Amino acid sequence: MNKEQFISIQMEGSLSIPGILLLNYPKLGLTESEMMLLLQVQLFIQQGKPFPTPDELAARMSASSPDCSMSLRSLIQRGFLKIDDEDIQSIRFEKYSLEPLWDKLYRFLTETKKEQCEPEKTEE
Amino acid sequence: MNKEQFISIQMEGSLSIPGILLLNYPKLGLTESEMMLLLQVQLFIQQGKPFPTPDELAARMSASSPDCSMSLRSLIQRGFLKIDDEDIQSIRFEKYSLEPLWDKLYRFLTETKKEQCEPEKTEE
Amino acid sequence: MNKEQFISIQMEGSLSIPGILLLNYPKLGLTESEMMLLLQVQLFIQQGKPFPTPDELAARMSASSPDCSMSLRSLIQRGFLKIDDEDIQSIRFEKYSLEPLWDKLYRFLTETKKEQCEPEKTEE
Amino acid sequence: MNKEQFISIQMEGSLSIPGILLLNYPKLGLTESEMMLLLQVQLFIQQGKPFPTPDELAARMSASSPDCSMSLRSLIQRGFLKIDDEDIQSIRFEKYSLEPLWDKLYRFLTETKKEQCEPEKTEE
Repeated sequence: MNKEQFISIQMEGSLSIPGILLLNYPKLGLTESEMMLLLQVQLFIQQGKPFPTPDELAARMSASSPDCSMSLRSLIQRGFLKIDDEDIQSIRFEKYSLEPLWDKLYRFLTETKKEQCEPEKTEE
Repeated sequence: MNKEQFISIQMEGSLSIPGILLLNYPKLGLTESEMMLLLQVQLFIQQGKPFPTPDELAARMSASSPDCSMSLRSLIQRGFLKIDDEDIQSIRFEKYSLEPLWDKLYRFLTETKKEQCEPEKTEE
Repeated sequence: MNKEQFISIQMEGSLSIPGILLLNYPKLGLTESEMMLLLQVQLFIQQGKPFPTPDELAARMSASSPDCSMSLRSLIQRGFLKIDDEDIQSIRFEKYSLEPLWDKLYRFLTETKKEQCEPEKTEE
Repeated sequence: MNKEQFISIQMEGSLSIPGILLLNYPKLGLTESEMMLLLQVQLFIQQGKPFPTPDELAARMSASSPDCSMSLRSLIQRGFLKIDDEDIQSIRFEKYSLEPLWDKLYRFLTETKKEQCEPEKTEE
């Protein structure tokens, strides 16, 4: 591996996934494929491309472009993902936001907490 | 969310996935489910439990325990995962290692590079 | 860079630092050197060595071993770090825990919130 | 901690630092303060603000704005950081790049390797 490759790998960076999300995404109703799709969207956002096309997403996944398109729509409808508008220098841009995912995770964690608090039993 | 929950979320930590892996796992022959399974194994390793059972893995995934078991076996056979032995205080432990995955990724990156290097064309 | 080096870099892994900590550590009373020392402790924990010696820490830092020793003591006294005891197979181990740091961060975030909010309403 | 705070913490994200960098920055000639400054620059880049001012950096550090300014200049002169120009919609932007840091790290790792490879000596 030469220097240019090493540098480009480092510049690519890493994606940090909170353990708490990895532990609970199935309980939120997400499949592994959907979780990976959300991670790919997050990586695009982090790389400064906040509105990847289904084609661009499919190029990084084992799913086809129409599959990605359908999954994105489903994730939006089920409240895991949303599209925000942003104006930069008076040009309008669309971008994905994972805010709904964190909203769901918060509600899951605090509701679970409340239930656990009655007769309680928290091992692990 | 109370203090105890916040602290336990932070103590849980995060898993860092190299961008280069997220960009290329399908080209290595991995599906989304398999990639997520490897990430779960990695998270267990990081949390000091380097040999999770299929049951423990299934509890964090939308797959069943027999599914996880079968996937683990397949990942080992296809050279993405291995089991190492370790002796601690003369007690033998088994643990998973993702070394074969990084080996495959290295070979993929350097071979791809070589091909690209003949008539060359490296934009981006 | 040969394959063995690439693999060992990947196996080394990465440390994830929450943005919220990077944004606020000086407000918690930490200097850059102390923050880096805590990160090194965290990396050791993640690598399965939860009780590094001052020597081991100094080998990765530009500080001397006595400096590291003094800083560790100060961090413990000021409530950023603690030492826990653990029994594994009836052998007693000591290990560092960053729990006090997260505790401080939680209190900082929620108190700041309250001040900012005054005429407002902060439920949990 | 209420929902809005939890969500904003998650949206803030995390910064991933390669273990290999944390293990070796002093050998590259960086102090803890300089390493933290580079991490803050990296976090700004990741958050879509690739050219933070010394004031913005100082607000997140225990260093003053003139200190940050001087450190940035020193890091550029010593080859750890550079400023790139970018044209977006024909408007020129400046942005920091950590490419020189990775370049230095690559050269350090491969040169160290070479030395180690002669009479050999791989401890740790």
